Amino acid sequence: MEYDGAGFAGWQAQPGRRTVESEVGSAIRGLTGEEITVHGSGRTDAGAHALGQVASFRYPGAVSAQRLVGALNARLPADVSVLDAEEVGEDFHARHSARWRHYRYTWLDRPSRPALDRARCWHLHRPLDEVAMAVAARVLVGRHDWSTFCSASEPAADRVREMREASVIRRGRFVDFDLVGTGFLRGLVRSIAGGLAEVGLRRHDPSWLGRVLEARERSLAPRTAPARGLALVGVEY
Amino acid sequence: MEYDGAGFAGWQAQPGRRTVESEVGSAIRGLTGEEITVHGSGRTDAGAHALGQVASFRYPGAVSAQRLVGALNARLPADVSVLDAEEVGEDFHARHSARWRHYRYTWLDRPSRPALDRARCWHLHRPLDEVAMAVAARVLVGRHDWSTFCSASEPAADRVREMREASVIRRGRFVDFDLVGTGFLRGLVRSIAGGLAEVGLRRHDPSWLGRVLEARERSLAPRTAPARGLALVGVEY
Repeated sequence: MEYDGAGFAGWQAQPGRRTVESEVGSAIRGLTGEEITVHGSGRTDAGAHALGQVASFRYPGAVSAQRLVGALNARLPADVSVLDAEEVGEDFHARHSARWRHYRYTWLDRPSRPALDRARCWHLHRPLDEVAMAVAARVLVGRHDWSTFCSASEPAADRVREMREASVIRRGRFVDFDLVGTGFLRGLVRSIAGGLAEVGLRRHDPSWLGRVLEARERSLAPRTAPARGLALVGVEY
Repeated sequence: MEYDGAGFAGWQAQPGRRTVESEVGSAIRGLTGEEITVHGSGRTDAGAHALGQVASFRYPGAVSAQRLVGALNARLPADVSVLDAEEVGEDFHARHSARWRHYRYTWLDRPSRPALDRARCWHLHRPLDEVAMAVAARVLVGRHDWSTFCSASEPAADRVREMREASVIRRGRFVDFDLVGTGFLRGLVRSIAGGLAEVGLRRHDPSWLGRVLEARERSLAPRTAPARGLALVGVEY
């Protein structure tokens, strides 16, 4: 699924809030007449986007995957779209079966604020040094304890995750930070993105990011980057 | 100026409608306390975007171009942004002084409708043959009478314009048609884009576009493409 996070209070269903999970649940209910639990690969924050969110559910009866895509899109609002569907085994679970998740954080560095991409990037008036950011990001690859960068609500005994790829690449006036890992603790990408912005703005040298990571100390966490720059690009199973 | 056309009834001021020209006029009035005429390089349609619209006006008094950018952006709504400003001679006029205008039309061809870019492209469920479109677009370069593709409201004696560049390039799931010319008659880019879509969907071969152009016959005009795929990229002086 692709979604524009600007109009959502995130993925996860919450009473009285417009969320992607609720919209998908309503579309499935409209189709089947039944209340069916939808499992997303993971939560996304309010305002964060998805290019490739994955969800699983048990469909009661027979339907072709192709027909299901069309039927759901006919029922979903314009800011969510099902890109593809396939039948999976009983043991498949969008969250538990996920092996790698890919997130992207996007900045726009130019003097004037954006009009067209205002809900899809973190705008900084001053130029970012994307080479310094790319050097800093290298330290993220591998198995680490992410205590510095994750929410204090994450259990202290379970803050180790493996990152397979971490890159920073300029794309015209945009700068993209791509991170692929086994799991993402709450607040992780936006906290790291906050740190990368500090490096890009030359408030810290690139090696600083590794030092705060190794310190495993939340009080050293950089300012959290805004959710609108974040997108879940895809999930590998 | 950059603007997101989704929330505007186009560039040109119209009573009771939200337009970019009116918003820019209000921002200048807020700054100067005076009603000042703003000249845009050209109109853009309701729903069409701009990456580089240019406007000129007489500022009463002294202000640095840099300060003017900040002061206008502080008064403009989030979907319009002034990117740059400079002082020009008395004889400069954003429309009359323009030498080349650059428009881009963007398609997204994939089975599922877009959520993130839904207001910024023309979505087609079937694949576009961008090579056939590029071949067809070559005929547009040069001086032509555009009667087939322009609005019937344009004066018949004045439908000749010169195009300097016409290209079609795929960019992932998007296809961009870029057209640079001396002037753009009303409805021109969207009508040509409608024709290019016919070629891309293989309803006509590439040479068909040249034949309808040469016929100078509005009744042969292809279906007009939706405004949301159109953007004014920039203007050269």
